[in-house]
Amino acid sequence: MSKPASKTAQDAAKAQTLKPRLPRGLVDRGPAEIAATQAMLQTIRESFELYGFEAVETPFIEYTEALGKFLPDLDRPNEGVFSFQDDDEAWLSLRYDLTAPLARYVAEHFDALPKPYRSYRAGYVFRNEKPGPGRFRQFMQFDADIVGAPSVAADAEICMMAADTLERVGIARGDYVVKVNNRKVLDGVMEAIGLGGEDQAGRRLTVLRAIDKLDRLGVEGVRLLLGPGRKDESGDFTRGAGLPDAAIDRIIRYVSFQAAPTGGGDRLAFWENFFGGWADVVGTSETGRQGIAELHAILRLCEAAGYGHDRVRADPSVVRGLEYYTGPVYEAELTFPVVGEDGQTVRFGSVAGGGRYDGLVGRFRSEPVPATGFSIGVSRLFSALQIVRSPIVARAAGPGPVVVLVLDREEIAAYQALVAALRGAGIRAEMYLGAAGLKAQMKYADRRGAPVAIIQGSDERARGEVQIKDLIEGARAAEAIASNAEWKAARPAQFSVPAAEMVARVQEVLGRHFP
Amino acid sequence: MSKPASKTAQDAAKAQTLKPRLPRGLVDRGPAEIAATQAMLQTIRESFELYGFEAVETPFIEYTEALGKFLPDLDRPNEGVFSFQDDDEAWLSLRYDLTAPLARYVAEHFDALPKPYRSYRAGYVFRNEKPGPGRFRQFMQFDADIVGAPSVAADAEICMMAADTLERVGIARGDYVVKVNNRKVLDGVMEAIGLGGEDQAGRRLTVLRAIDKLDRLGVEGVRLLLGPGRKDESGDFTRGAGLPDAAIDRIIRYVSFQAAPTGGGDRLAFWENFFGGWADVVGTSETGRQGIAELHAILRLCEAAGYGHDRVRADPSVVRGLEYYTGPVYEAELTFPVVGEDGQTVRFGSVAGGGRYDGLVGRFRSEPVPATGFSIGVSRLFSALQIVRSPIVARAAGPGPVVVLVLDREEIAAYQALVAALRGAGIRAEMYLGAAGLKAQMKYADRRGAPVAIIQGSDERARGEVQIKDLIEGARAAEAIASNAEWKAARPAQFSVPAAEMVARVQEVLGRHFP
Repeated sequence: MSKPASKTAQDAAKAQTLKPRLPRGLVDRGPAEIAATQAMLQTIRESFELYGFEAVETPFIEYTEALGKFLPDLDRPNEGVFSFQDDDEAWLSLRYDLTAPLARYVAEHFDALPKPYRSYRAGYVFRNEKPGPGRFRQFMQFDADIVGAPSVAADAEICMMAADTLERVGIARGDYVVKVNNRKVLDGVMEAIGLGGEDQAGRRLTVLRAIDKLDRLGVEGVRLLLGPGRKDESGDFTRGAGLPDAAIDRIIRYVSFQAAPTGGGDRLAFWENFFGGWADVVGTSETGRQGIAELHAILRLCEAAGYGHDRVRADPSVVRGLEYYTGPVYEAELTFPVVGEDGQTVRFGSVAGGGRYDGLVGRFRSEPVPATGFSIGVSRLFSALQIVRSPIVARAAGPGPVVVLVLDREEIAAYQALVAALRGAGIRAEMYLGAAGLKAQMKYADRRGAPVAIIQGSDERARGEVQIKDLIEGARAAEAIASNAEWKAARPAQFSVPAAEMVARVQEVLGRHFP
Repeated sequence: MSKPASKTAQDAAKAQTLKPRLPRGLVDRGPAEIAATQAMLQTIRESFELYGFEAVETPFIEYTEALGKFLPDLDRPNEGVFSFQDDDEAWLSLRYDLTAPLARYVAEHFDALPKPYRSYRAGYVFRNEKPGPGRFRQFMQFDADIVGAPSVAADAEICMMAADTLERVGIARGDYVVKVNNRKVLDGVMEAIGLGGEDQAGRRLTVLRAIDKLDRLGVEGVRLLLGPGRKDESGDFTRGAGLPDAAIDRIIRYVSFQAAPTGGGDRLAFWENFFGGWADVVGTSETGRQGIAELHAILRLCEAAGYGHDRVRADPSVVRGLEYYTGPVYEAELTFPVVGEDGQTVRFGSVAGGGRYDGLVGRFRSEPVPATGFSIGVSRLFSALQIVRSPIVARAAGPGPVVVLVLDREEIAAYQALVAALRGAGIRAEMYLGAAGLKAQMKYADRRGAPVAIIQGSDERARGEVQIKDLIEGARAAEAIASNAEWKAARPAQFSVPAAEMVARVQEVLGRHFP
């Protein structure tokens, strides 16, 4: 066959094959990331269980109407949710968070559950959004919620647990802060500027989402979003809330109110002063005053339990984008600096958030059911732990398996017996199952991170022996030995033993490298 | 307000609320099941890692065309798969198994992966099927695959690992069998009855699926499916393959060929005899003979490694419904009896299966890539472990948290401090966060499975003490004490200690009950 013809045949074959690829915003994960994530999840689980939370799991698919529509910033027709019709025409959706399914679960099993009901869940959620850097269409959340507890002591407990959990996974005190606010305070501010009442709900949401962008856009950006609107760098225009200047001023004054930096002295007194000053932005609004009182109570409880405002603090800019929050809202922010995509140094930012959603379970019942909870963004937190080199995720996936090389394919049952002996002693082991020669098999062992290779040629088999090759020691020796000839003469880290002693000698080698 | 009016108002409110429910074929899971399943999964993971397999994870959503269409028994328009369109009109699907995504993954990362590539994955898969008893639309599989190993030694290894894994999770030897067959043998039988060749592919599939139902329908049922067709109890008619009697006879003779029961003597010789007798059903078909030779090699390797035909055996009725298998196929069956839905005693049945699929990765490449693997049905295996009371799943989820009761809501910060002290010592603990009185709080502690309750009224607080109530001891004593008055006088298992000693004394109580 001539070369061009062969090339054409190859091309044709290639044209017929599918391209192996994933839809955008979805990723695969390898063993090291899986092991490290598992270790992190296990630590979070232990933290939540210490607080008396118990596990629950709901399916990935729910009735669309059961999930409701609470996602912010919808840039997709499906309203950010993956949906499809069942054979009876009912609409089903992939869950977009773990809170809406929990509300359905609690409502469905209401009488059977202890109340207050403390539960945690970890699992993937799905957003039908435009994917971007660090923005995935499938990502994991780890949630904890308390349903049936009207007291803000529940909110305080969630904040303390958030702080404890961050420290437990390896974020140092001082590198994070749990920021708390209250939607009622925001509602009070709204009332004070004439945006109270049902008919203004849409406009209030626009204002909330503008405030939510304070970290990213700064005061001037938020000012534009509250007023005439804002054009971003790409030229896209976001419509503003169209508020008059006086209203904008009041909101800006409200969100700019900062807790003073940590100092000595009476911390409870510090919060008294803080909230005293803050109160004036809500004016005479009863809702606003109630919100401030609740917030004050949360901070007091945290302070009393030893969680000072270096760990849990009030922050007027915390809004949370989701529509269903009704009272306290909180956000765990990591404060250490990282270099952003644009080369600028920024704070790492939010890794968890939540709040009180007294109406969500009530969608299914004739009375409201108080509930509060928070959600950890698992991959965000995982990235953070990699940056701070938390011992939890630094822990490697462990060494690879011992690889038994196959020199004589007719004797495969004999090699199989060697592998079985190693496994019988609890040693991870495998027989090379490919078709390649000895050199490629050694390369394979190297690629698998094998600590030891077992070699048995016909000579060794005749003598009832095996060669044990210590690949870790070998690699070290290779660095020290200069010439190839010298290497071949010495053959360091390789020795022959009777087959009956193989397991014990391999255990010795492994024990030396992984004490 | 008059009663009827109030009732009507309530009705109206109820009518407006959503019904909290799940779509059919989907289920929630509570803490005990989650903990037991996790323990089982961890054991499987350890078993697979002992064999040198490493973890990999792919997303739940893939391009529909990347997954292909390999599902049997399609009774839904979507061909059994949940699918939806992306914003660029491309079709996406939820994965229906873990093999098709693995093929995509391996093809996409082909050069970066060591070959043979041994990997395992556990995760939920989705089937858009008619749900039924024990048949879910979301269920978990746990797969292990070897890609890039052409040798049947890889298939033998999978069979041995299946046997080891079942024993490791608690299925006794003798209660399971790994049954092996080879699609090539089946192809040989097809050739022998004139169903060879590309144009008969559809009919071959009909025949395979008929054979696959042997366990469920018996010989007569399969005979009907191979011939004119079969009407089931509900009156539904399944079209038959329309084969002539001679062809049906040959297939039935083939599938009825049984391995003799285990006995003494030379087991390798047993398989020689077995395959000698079996060969005649494939006649002169070269493919058939090759299939028998491969099968024989697998059984020889297993026997040599100590896996006798009490554990791994040839079985002509094993077919596997999926279309993509190209050679050896295997199925792990649990053989202990259970009472079925109709009251009849049946074998528990299949909990895992798999086979060689040399063409699946090749869909993405211009050359075929050998691959073999198997998949455990996680909930099926979990049910089996419950039936045999495997220690792995019998292990309970552990005791509930210590509950600190709240007698005086004004002093909540003081109760919070008690809880924090317990947690600080690593004791699972929570403060009661509801609005109920003391009696209801005790009931709550009971419901949570709390081993200890902490009680502090204003008297105790004034004295700097707490009451520790040992709820496990208390329940025991309650059974022994006859009268209520006697109980009140004795108040067993409840004692007062200085608050500073609380943690140590609670640890004592817990240590007594959970040594």
